[in-house]
Amino acid sequence: MRRGGPAGTGAPFSCRSAGRPGHRILGGVTLATDIRQGVLRALADLHVPGRAVDESVAAELERFAHLMRDYPTRPGKTLRGQLLVWSARANGAANGGAAMILAEAIELFQNWVLVHDDIEDDSEERRGLPALHKQVGVPVALNVGDAMHMLMWRRLSDLPDAPPVDKRAALDEFTNMLLATAAGQHLDLAWVSAGRFDVTESEYLQMVTLKTAYYTVVAPLRLGAYCAGATPPAALESAAVDLGVAFQIRDDILNLGPGEGYGKEVAGDLYEGKRTLILAHLLANLRPAERKRVIGLLARPRGAKTAAEMDEVLQLMRERGSLDHAQRVAEERAARGLEGVRAWLGRLPDQAAASRVAGLLGDLADRSA
Amino acid sequence: MRRGGPAGTGAPFSCRSAGRPGHRILGGVTLATDIRQGVLRALADLHVPGRAVDESVAAELERFAHLMRDYPTRPGKTLRGQLLVWSARANGAANGGAAMILAEAIELFQNWVLVHDDIEDDSEERRGLPALHKQVGVPVALNVGDAMHMLMWRRLSDLPDAPPVDKRAALDEFTNMLLATAAGQHLDLAWVSAGRFDVTESEYLQMVTLKTAYYTVVAPLRLGAYCAGATPPAALESAAVDLGVAFQIRDDILNLGPGEGYGKEVAGDLYEGKRTLILAHLLANLRPAERKRVIGLLARPRGAKTAAEMDEVLQLMRERGSLDHAQRVAEERAARGLEGVRAWLGRLPDQAAASRVAGLLGDLADRSA
Repeated sequence: MRRGGPAGTGAPFSCRSAGRPGHRILGGVTLATDIRQGVLRALADLHVPGRAVDESVAAELERFAHLMRDYPTRPGKTLRGQLLVWSARANGAANGGAAMILAEAIELFQNWVLVHDDIEDDSEERRGLPALHKQVGVPVALNVGDAMHMLMWRRLSDLPDAPPVDKRAALDEFTNMLLATAAGQHLDLAWVSAGRFDVTESEYLQMVTLKTAYYTVVAPLRLGAYCAGATPPAALESAAVDLGVAFQIRDDILNLGPGEGYGKEVAGDLYEGKRTLILAHLLANLRPAERKRVIGLLARPRGAKTAAEMDEVLQLMRERGSLDHAQRVAEERAARGLEGVRAWLGRLPDQAAASRVAGLLGDLADRSA
Repeated sequence: MRRGGPAGTGAPFSCRSAGRPGHRILGGVTLATDIRQGVLRALADLHVPGRAVDESVAAELERFAHLMRDYPTRPGKTLRGQLLVWSARANGAANGGAAMILAEAIELFQNWVLVHDDIEDDSEERRGLPALHKQVGVPVALNVGDAMHMLMWRRLSDLPDAPPVDKRAALDEFTNMLLATAAGQHLDLAWVSAGRFDVTESEYLQMVTLKTAYYTVVAPLRLGAYCAGATPPAALESAAVDLGVAFQIRDDILNLGPGEGYGKEVAGDLYEGKRTLILAHLLANLRPAERKRVIGLLARPRGAKTAAEMDEVLQLMRERGSLDHAQRVAEERAARGLEGVRAWLGRLPDQAAASRVAGLLGDLADRSA
């Protein structure tokens, strides 16, 4: 019944090379490639009942499978998947099979949720190319995202259910991570939908804790522990949340930057009317008339916004120190989070792997991924 | 680790009453109520990490959970769930715990997929009330559907993994059912999106086989067998597909009917430009000029369609015998399917339950649910 890989001892963390001890030590690039290939394999696993179909139908179903592979073949760093695999290794997971399955699943999640996020935000671009729904329309893209979600669960069903892997704990963690993300996304969307611009810093921080921190940092670190049969300490959660929040704030800051090579529209968040820490700070530090004007500009439908007006808002964010404030909060959160996570990492059995985890977290909190 | 119910012997098929043999024999109404309550319990299981949240955030998350319960609290027949439970019993499943979990999961699927379908089709109504996205907007509704999808999987994780239940087979069947439905939905949406009206009867039948037949009939019957550790015969699949296709054709016919008490817009499929067997027959039986006019009318954006024009198309469907043709095909498929399924049912251990399965299938093929 179980399709888990063979029990290995110190094998590199790759599905294909599991059970070949000492074959190679995976660097970030190779691991990223392995995860990406695993994601594409999982998405090629579209089972359609084997009844004869017309050529036109077969061609359209082939296109369906092709659309599922669109976002995963665009450049992406697979940081969450890598973090999970190195956490598993740091925790002493001897065989990487379970960690690779979970790493692929978390990247599958990232990809399908981006397809749906882009519809929800009506984003123009994703990773330097038009968003999927801009290419094929909302109905087809929405359904493609659903099918990717289904295939994510099929991949998760491959998770071995034998020591050291705690499958139940891992699946519970995974589901909680999904629901936290959806709950955070709901807050974000509901505020936009209700035209609520008076979001406080406290509300913003709770929103991004749910929307970003769990799937970006908390779950990858904790899932790695479950792959090794370890129980992550309760204190890890809050440190990991700090890092995830720092990552999201930095992402929001980068979104308002010049945009070179970033693969997103410049100041896309302003066009989308996103609530950010930067905006919360700005609105709390404007005179009533300025505040009214900024809200008036941001509340317009996307198509009615001009570059000059968005520049005006951006300029205010610079002048009133909102960008600097957000940068400071991100740095504080990152420092506190790294300290907490390092306290945990220092006690783990594989210190070489633990230092890879710390390195990835440093990158993540420092720049966008 | 496992949260499966206690092993029972002939207990009624209810989670709450499992293990209380002879408590009561569930009729359709009671069983439907039990399934609906199970669905609502599953949707109340939204885990959000336990960090202190502001009152405004807590209230918005409560609204999120409330929106997930919107479609499941509207009147619905839970026919698929009931079919699954009676199939399990007919196959000799002694305890209904696994069947109830799967029945709730298939109804959770039905509900979240309707939320997304209504966005994809831009439907106005669902079960007599405005479609969810018409109430809360596309972004919030899309994300609500995703969270319901996640909670469906959480409910599936409760499935016991011990004889007689074949958990692996059941989860594989469930996933295949989901993917078949998504593939069928893709065909439907892709044809609409490409403005393709020249869909043949053969293409239509392949589309609805995937989109409707698997989750409506094939999977409920087969999943019931897996609950009892039985292996459904290969021949069951094609008979179940026939019934599912008959159901969908009847649904398409009813959609074009007078609409009293049906809870959908009158001729909504014409406004949505849906490809149906009726339309395929009509287009194949019109003179070129008529054909051009009908396609021209149907190809307009929804808002540009008038009731008079849609009536004109509907009248042609009556005159050219397209509705009668579809009715005949549905009746033939239903008769053939029922015959095949009855051959299987006749060999099952619990004949009283088997006759309930036959009754439900008769209803299903005969009218819409």
